[in-house]
Amino acid sequence: MKAFADTCKYIDSHYPEMFIIADAKRGDIGNTSDLYAHAFVHKNSVIDAVTLSPYMGRDTVDPFLKYEDKWAIILALTSNKSADDFETQPMADGRPLWKHVLEKAKTWGTPDNTMFVVGATRAETLKEVREIVPDHFLLVPGVGAQGGSLEEVARHGLNSQCGLLVNSSRAIIYADPTERFAEAAAEEARKMATQMSALL
Amino acid sequence: MKAFADTCKYIDSHYPEMFIIADAKRGDIGNTSDLYAHAFVHKNSVIDAVTLSPYMGRDTVDPFLKYEDKWAIILALTSNKSADDFETQPMADGRPLWKHVLEKAKTWGTPDNTMFVVGATRAETLKEVREIVPDHFLLVPGVGAQGGSLEEVARHGLNSQCGLLVNSSRAIIYADPTERFAEAAAEEARKMATQMSALL
Repeated sequence: MKAFADTCKYIDSHYPEMFIIADAKRGDIGNTSDLYAHAFVHKNSVIDAVTLSPYMGRDTVDPFLKYEDKWAIILALTSNKSADDFETQPMADGRPLWKHVLEKAKTWGTPDNTMFVVGATRAETLKEVREIVPDHFLLVPGVGAQGGSLEEVARHGLNSQCGLLVNSSRAIIYADPTERFAEAAAEEARKMATQMSALL
Repeated sequence: MKAFADTCKYIDSHYPEMFIIADAKRGDIGNTSDLYAHAFVHKNSVIDAVTLSPYMGRDTVDPFLKYEDKWAIILALTSNKSADDFETQPMADGRPLWKHVLEKAKTWGTPDNTMFVVGATRAETLKEVREIVPDHFLLVPGVGAQGGSLEEVARHGLNSQCGLLVNSSRAIIYADPTERFAEAAAEEARKMATQMSALL
């Protein structure tokens, strides 16, 4: 945890405008989730948001909503291939589990403290996501290493406030295995930022 | 992580017969899950098992099954109240999500490397659990602080190999807030162990 906390502090002191997300995918009972919230967004207060798994329900999310100006980012439809094991499976009303997650979880907080993860590899479904949560920000992984299209994501996912945080991780941090990895990563990040600017 | 690793090592060096579970409820894509598996069961090899959230599907679980003599313990039906948000909701065939998790996840590994979490607060459903996974070990939290009955758990959950790991955490670690917490916790643990022996 020390290297993690140090990295967060470095980013915050050098680039205070940056929004820092701990992509920790926590998901536990209320008692434990309270402690996770305390560790992530209270103690190490430079962190702005934490990703959360909805499997165990509201108990996981509530503790994070108590902290002002902090965000709970809840997994809905992820970009990995085995998302089809459960997330896209139909519930009794014929709609997939991930839509039930959106419907229910959007009632726990507000568009000012809750976001949802929706993978870029399923950009066409962003339209359906926007029917359920028109105002929430979406964290969209899967552009880059996983092959999602930024254009498709923007077309279906943008709302009047932008409403999209598009994330590329592996394409950037694994851009180069040699000693010039820092330059290569910076270059990849700039490339992605330029593409994003063009679409906004 | 250092205090955690040190505690695990202490237990292993003083009580090598103890089965150590990291109740970390991890649930991530394959790439990240590989690293979690490496950190939990390879690097810190005194850990025998890690709890995993099934939301993102098989990608989360597979990396843990590669390590010999280590266990993936998958959340099925948890003991917290908001388990009803999604876990007990009916899927298209009328059966709850948690039964789909058992059905699908039991095909990923074997009863020798996979267990499932089923809360003691829902002891009557252990009979239905046993219809789907007769041979798997179950990790059963919810006895103690959460009020589950050990007798009920044993009646419905035991199989020919025992098949039950009953867990009490808060009733033990929070047994006493004063300086004699170690004695009080030991006493609570012994009490629970005696009750368990009587039922086996």
